[in-house]
Amino acid sequence: MLYVGVVGSGECDEETGLLAYEVGKEIAAHRAVLVCGGLGGVMEQACRGCKEAGGVSLGILPGSKRQEANPYVSYAITTGMGEMRNFLVVRCSDVLIAISGEHGTLSEIAIALKEKKKVVALRPSYHLQGLEMARSPKEAVKKALF
Amino acid sequence: MLYVGVVGSGECDEETGLLAYEVGKEIAAHRAVLVCGGLGGVMEQACRGCKEAGGVSLGILPGSKRQEANPYVSYAITTGMGEMRNFLVVRCSDVLIAISGEHGTLSEIAIALKEKKKVVALRPSYHLQGLEMARSPKEAVKKALF
Amino acid sequence: MLYVGVVGSGECDEETGLLAYEVGKEIAAHRAVLVCGGLGGVMEQACRGCKEAGGVSLGILPGSKRQEANPYVSYAITTGMGEMRNFLVVRCSDVLIAISGEHGTLSEIAIALKEKKKVVALRPSYHLQGLEMARSPKEAVKKALF
Amino acid sequence: MLYVGVVGSGECDEETGLLAYEVGKEIAAHRAVLVCGGLGGVMEQACRGCKEAGGVSLGILPGSKRQEANPYVSYAITTGMGEMRNFLVVRCSDVLIAISGEHGTLSEIAIALKEKKKVVALRPSYHLQGLEMARSPKEAVKKALF
Repeated sequence: MLYVGVVGSGECDEETGLLAYEVGKEIAAHRAVLVCGGLGGVMEQACRGCKEAGGVSLGILPGSKRQEANPYVSYAITTGMGEMRNFLVVRCSDVLIAISGEHGTLSEIAIALKEKKKVVALRPSYHLQGLEMARSPKEAVKKALF
Repeated sequence: MLYVGVVGSGECDEETGLLAYEVGKEIAAHRAVLVCGGLGGVMEQACRGCKEAGGVSLGILPGSKRQEANPYVSYAITTGMGEMRNFLVVRCSDVLIAISGEHGTLSEIAIALKEKKKVVALRPSYHLQGLEMARSPKEAVKKALF
Repeated sequence: MLYVGVVGSGECDEETGLLAYEVGKEIAAHRAVLVCGGLGGVMEQACRGCKEAGGVSLGILPGSKRQEANPYVSYAITTGMGEMRNFLVVRCSDVLIAISGEHGTLSEIAIALKEKKKVVALRPSYHLQGLEMARSPKEAVKKALF
Repeated sequence: MLYVGVVGSGECDEETGLLAYEVGKEIAAHRAVLVCGGLGGVMEQACRGCKEAGGVSLGILPGSKRQEANPYVSYAITTGMGEMRNFLVVRCSDVLIAISGEHGTLSEIAIALKEKKKVVALRPSYHLQGLEMARSPKEAVKKALF
């Protein structure tokens, strides 16, 4: 069973959210586990897609309260470690899909690349050597899984 | 949905293992989520019971490899934080059931009591103020959940 | 150069504070580095004694603001990890001196014993196998260092 | 007292090492505390410069053994958290100076920017919005401190 991390901003525009939603659906369709930071924006839309397609998502939260998770997270892991939990999101994931994103997302991409994990980027905000580009949610999940 | 942490030694005698197995079954029967350190001994037997009864367990591992989890863990969270992951086991749990155990278990009990979480002890190795004693797996889970 | 962890409550009575103060002075007199959680009570009094005797203390803080350290800490390490920083206090220390204390202190003692580190107890609140008892600050530091 | 984080690769060419060495000297000359990851390369050369100029450096190590620190670190903090300690390096620092560097360095830059901390870059490998560029060690430390 593969664990696919989905990283991106905690707030996002509708179009980005739709990409995340489709990525979540695809992950579930392939029976992989979705790992994310458990909050809003890209994380929430990915979890929503995953849930609708009958999949399982793990939300690794910065805070200590499980209620802070978005309502689509299957299992929420409270850490109380603040942004340091980004490291855990990467560590739990076999591969990462980065959707748009800002500095927090960039830190997760950089950690994953340092740990030699595959990172697939969908509409990336950053262009780094080593990122695999995808043009659609379907392609992103395919590149992540195969 | 309640998250019940089960803590105890990574190696245990048969009798202790049986208690852990029954606790795992009871947790699943009550549709709570079992949280543990994901390794052997008490953790493994609790996960086994949980799985057999159709429940879900989260294994929060000290290392970075998911294969280190016992085979009954539903979802394994790799941390690479070593024993520091004990803190995460406590933080993720609404309530703790401590089964026998040694120094690692004692640290988890102490952290939980400091965070004002309920700790139910089954055949405890330590007697601390604030522990709720249980005489059977059934009673332990009942005291944990109600 | 040895690093001696001093653990105890963040609030303490005068008598306990005096013990901590003397322990801090002794640690400095032996040119060891004092490690603690950086806050008040036992931690503050130990740092005060250390500073007055010309020693160096490291305060490993739960929060993200260096100003939360007591005024006698030489160098403050902000972690933002909350009580999880207790683990770092133990990990940075070659040996631990526990002065009185409550659940947080107990968790640190248990972690140290699990990691096979020497723990010297001064007026302990807990009696655990493996603790070395000391009757005075001088004796505590001597037992810690030799 | 300001804490200046110096981040860069654990292995570096001579020229980069010289920049780090000069940065370390400048930090000490301004009586700031140097914070780093405690290992080789840029970290080691910065600590060496700092030590030669009579300054103090904190080395926040990924492992659990203090001997893994480079020989110029004043005080070594063992974490056992692996690369997750990068977060602590950033958290302990008021401002960051990034010297060249690879993915690990990029993760630290990204975390610092996310936490709204100033990041000064000297011969950067990455060009990100929000980085302040410096052309010399002197200028880097001046930009960091003022």
